[in-house]
Amino acid sequence: MARRIYVGFILILLTITEARTQQITRIDPTFWWVGMKNPKVQLLVYGPSIAQSQVSLNYPGVKLEKVKKVENPNYLFLDLNINPTAKAGKLNFTFSGAKKTTYTYELKARNTNPKGQGVSSKDFIYLVLPDRFANADESNDNFADMADPEADRQNPFLRHGGDITGITNHLDYFQELGVTALWLNPVIENNQPQTNEGGSMRSAYHGYGFTDHYQVDKRLGGNEAYLKFVQAAHAKNLRVVQDAVYNHLGINHWILKDPPSKDWVHQWPTYTNTSYKFQPVLDPYSALSDKKITLDGWFVPFLPDLNQENAYVANYLIQHALWTVEYFGVDAWRIDTYLYNNQAFMNRCNQALLEEYPNIHIFGESWVNNVISQAYFVKNKINFPFKCNQPGTLDFVLWGAFNQALNQKSDWNENLVYQVLAQDAVYENPLKLVTFLDNHDMDRYYSVIGEDFNKYKIGITWLLTTRGIPSLYYGTEILMKNFKNPSDAEVRKDFPGGFKGDKENKFTATGRTAAENEAFNFVKKLAQYRKATPALHSGKLMQYLPQNNTYVYFRFDAAKTIMVATNPTDQEITLETSRFAERMSGFNRARNVLTEEVQNSLATLKLPAKSALVLELLK
Amino acid sequence: MARRIYVGFILILLTITEARTQQITRIDPTFWWVGMKNPKVQLLVYGPSIAQSQVSLNYPGVKLEKVKKVENPNYLFLDLNINPTAKAGKLNFTFSGAKKTTYTYELKARNTNPKGQGVSSKDFIYLVLPDRFANADESNDNFADMADPEADRQNPFLRHGGDITGITNHLDYFQELGVTALWLNPVIENNQPQTNEGGSMRSAYHGYGFTDHYQVDKRLGGNEAYLKFVQAAHAKNLRVVQDAVYNHLGINHWILKDPPSKDWVHQWPTYTNTSYKFQPVLDPYSALSDKKITLDGWFVPFLPDLNQENAYVANYLIQHALWTVEYFGVDAWRIDTYLYNNQAFMNRCNQALLEEYPNIHIFGESWVNNVISQAYFVKNKINFPFKCNQPGTLDFVLWGAFNQALNQKSDWNENLVYQVLAQDAVYENPLKLVTFLDNHDMDRYYSVIGEDFNKYKIGITWLLTTRGIPSLYYGTEILMKNFKNPSDAEVRKDFPGGFKGDKENKFTATGRTAAENEAFNFVKKLAQYRKATPALHSGKLMQYLPQNNTYVYFRFDAAKTIMVATNPTDQEITLETSRFAERMSGFNRARNVLTEEVQNSLATLKLPAKSALVLELLK
Repeated sequence: MARRIYVGFILILLTITEARTQQITRIDPTFWWVGMKNPKVQLLVYGPSIAQSQVSLNYPGVKLEKVKKVENPNYLFLDLNINPTAKAGKLNFTFSGAKKTTYTYELKARNTNPKGQGVSSKDFIYLVLPDRFANADESNDNFADMADPEADRQNPFLRHGGDITGITNHLDYFQELGVTALWLNPVIENNQPQTNEGGSMRSAYHGYGFTDHYQVDKRLGGNEAYLKFVQAAHAKNLRVVQDAVYNHLGINHWILKDPPSKDWVHQWPTYTNTSYKFQPVLDPYSALSDKKITLDGWFVPFLPDLNQENAYVANYLIQHALWTVEYFGVDAWRIDTYLYNNQAFMNRCNQALLEEYPNIHIFGESWVNNVISQAYFVKNKINFPFKCNQPGTLDFVLWGAFNQALNQKSDWNENLVYQVLAQDAVYENPLKLVTFLDNHDMDRYYSVIGEDFNKYKIGITWLLTTRGIPSLYYGTEILMKNFKNPSDAEVRKDFPGGFKGDKENKFTATGRTAAENEAFNFVKKLAQYRKATPALHSGKLMQYLPQNNTYVYFRFDAAKTIMVATNPTDQEITLETSRFAERMSGFNRARNVLTEEVQNSLATLKLPAKSALVLELLK
Repeated sequence: MARRIYVGFILILLTITEARTQQITRIDPTFWWVGMKNPKVQLLVYGPSIAQSQVSLNYPGVKLEKVKKVENPNYLFLDLNINPTAKAGKLNFTFSGAKKTTYTYELKARNTNPKGQGVSSKDFIYLVLPDRFANADESNDNFADMADPEADRQNPFLRHGGDITGITNHLDYFQELGVTALWLNPVIENNQPQTNEGGSMRSAYHGYGFTDHYQVDKRLGGNEAYLKFVQAAHAKNLRVVQDAVYNHLGINHWILKDPPSKDWVHQWPTYTNTSYKFQPVLDPYSALSDKKITLDGWFVPFLPDLNQENAYVANYLIQHALWTVEYFGVDAWRIDTYLYNNQAFMNRCNQALLEEYPNIHIFGESWVNNVISQAYFVKNKINFPFKCNQPGTLDFVLWGAFNQALNQKSDWNENLVYQVLAQDAVYENPLKLVTFLDNHDMDRYYSVIGEDFNKYKIGITWLLTTRGIPSLYYGTEILMKNFKNPSDAEVRKDFPGGFKGDKENKFTATGRTAAENEAFNFVKKLAQYRKATPALHSGKLMQYLPQNNTYVYFRFDAAKTIMVATNPTDQEITLETSRFAERMSGFNRARNVLTEEVQNSLATLKLPAKSALVLELLK
């Protein structure tokens, strides 16, 4: 009997201990700060039957304003109000009731590291796919405890082992090229299983299926590598753009195994994919059902669609955004699948970031095909019933124009770049739009233009001299090519030289072919010139009606006037400049920015076949 | 001696008499009214050296506020202010000085005839080219005193003799077809010489080169025929749209022989044609020089470009517009080459018309290729630096979408009509846009769609059931066809049956072929249904994302719901209707508007290959 009692006592003790250690599995955000402009934070507390507990807190300057229960008893949401006078330290929450435990939550002091500095039209952004750029640490290529443990460079669809430190190790390369900001495809943990697409297994190397918001993927180096990367980048005057995803989660996200409520993600009677159509979001004649499918339909079956109308979901996402900027010190915020999100939520989220970090830049991905629809998703001058507050957007319409103009077969006077820019009056500030020639989801630029190096130079020239914040997809500077057909992996190849055993190293001039060096040097020349030339950042733009097959525009400020003239034809063109008196009068010489040659007369200009001329006008 | 004195006396007498009779060649407006809302009118007085005269007027309630001289001494401009209490009657102006004369100017009483009634989305407009529709009066075909005396039906480029009475004589035809408003290409005197275009002589039968604003062309029947036409049309509940031209004059305009000032029309050092490009007008980056060429460049060498920045020109044009509505009683105002005009002037002009005739509708021709640019030239919801006040516009963007959608070879889910309408949020009122399938300057609709009668029906269905004010170019209802190549005349052929000796008479069912009757009856059926169905006028539009190759939309109000579904493919489609519950729930039957068949179940609908289904839903 006594023995049985003793055994029973041990069992009870074990149960209590287990309950104590397991009761709080996690609190998100994983920590927070004193001294944030917004004194409020909502902690998501996860633990078995935690909702049965009474919560108390005793910490000077921190008030537990509300304890909220939801459908799932394994969650509590704690609304804290942190007085500006509160000191950094450890908060001890007491959870009492049937079971009792404490949880120590850290309130850090804010550091003075640069953060949320923004990117602007002064910058030149370089987009890197971390898994495919450089592998600095092979020890983080494979983890047996992850859903997709397999890195295999021979298989285009699986992880290749690139990591954040691999990018950090090439900061000098970016600086040499004239890049001033780095945008990494998402780095947050994607502990996703492989998926079967068309018979072949694919990994989540692309990064858009988060499984734990508060962990950078350990195969990319984890939080520590990302922190170091941002600091190293800042030390070299490179800014960092975070790739954010609000629209969906990875299907393996920890929260989906036991969600706070059924409506944490959008539920449908049967699986419903988004239509991928933007029109219903802004169409005044749209059916509600079409709008719902666009917004609430799932992007793909393995990326459940977050329900941002649920206030807890909204807080969770907004706080994660603030936490990320504060913790890692990133400067700008690129938002994935922007148009598929609840737009009122996006406004709240943007506002929260802008209030805390007034200089941060935010630009979403809204893949549309006309200017009105693009304007809907950025601050604009159209009195839509919904007023978007996003400061920037990726300029998909100009991307289309760049590529169509370069491939236009005839009637060069109908230049689409000209036509698209002529519609800029609808944006609150077109300088804040992020321009590009291609990206990770598109046929690569060099292939789209038929591997025509002359066209290549024209497009690069447009990108780096017209209005907006230019961005370049990794490898474009070394003529990386391919179409998405047969698969996305074709346009996401490894950067040669980034991986052990690579036969070629395109990070160095000696490793590049003559053509690759010509391309690299062309981008570098213009990018470095741009970097030093405020007229190309915030100078006014004046564009002339394309005539005689030539598209001419000027960027100018009080200090400098730069003239850009493109001849897309197969013949040399002699350009009479009298038409451009409004911008050229007072100048009688010019320096060719690309060749450094000085031109001592401007009455006529020779434009070689298929070329772009960039002249800095001189008195 | 005495004899010589006598002869001298006679000579002096003759001189005085001649001076008296010639001194005032004309005053425009040719007469005016008491009781206009705007009490002011500016009379243009033309007579040799008239500027040397002192002018006086003594008429109760009418004040001669100012007498203004301009560059040319043969003009005076008299600013009158007509008190609301002034009575109709004859004003005797005295012009005294070196010579003295009087001029009797009539102030009429306003009649109560309907005028400025507007056209709205209740209407269906029919566009007629008067010279090419019907010749009722052969006595007005040729006038030896006109610059182009030659009517010749055998020559496509010369006048054919059609006249306004020819149109008046066919009002029953329009009524039968379901038309509710008639828009005539300009009827104002075009005493233009023939022009040589590409080696062949062409006449001004098209009507856009005015030579005397205050005369309807006598070859069309003159002011009297037009007055009768408007009254006859009104008597049959048909409204009349005037085709107005502010941008230019005919080179033979009387005023150009001795203009008030050199700047009456835009002067250039050498002849400068407009670029025909709309972008510089709204492009925030445009050079001033490009804008000037678009706006002030001449449309063609024989149509001098009016300088609307000259206040006298502006008044002259505005008063002519008011005079025209007041005198002839027209209901709406179509404005030629709208975008080429000084836009501030256009606003003044629109405002003057709208103040005097609050119900009038105004819609200009701005041939652009995107919605933003179209919105610029109509009341819109975009905060452009310039705010246009024009209530309507011809919808060139939707025209492009109609035709492209019908000729689209693949991906029917990317229906351009859907995509264009989805951008309607930028217009203050899209119901006020005038829609069309073609017009007098375009390849004819039936040819554009490859003479495919099924496509024809789809396009007509869209035109008559979607938002806006539909308009039809004469002859489309009888399948008139042709491309503009080799010349515009190809799309401006005579309406068969309108001219003496015509072998065919397409005004009657017996004169039409089976196919023509099918077309006529199709238009008629839909137009008559539309006429009786307010839901198709001002009912809301709900359009669904095109899916499975089908574009479906609804027009609905409290009384009726009409469903339109188009299948552009070569296969029959069975349409599941559950998607459309938002509009269809509550309805379980439907009447096919075109066949009158009643459908007793709506769960699925059969859409024959290449067809449009129009259903009135029933409970």
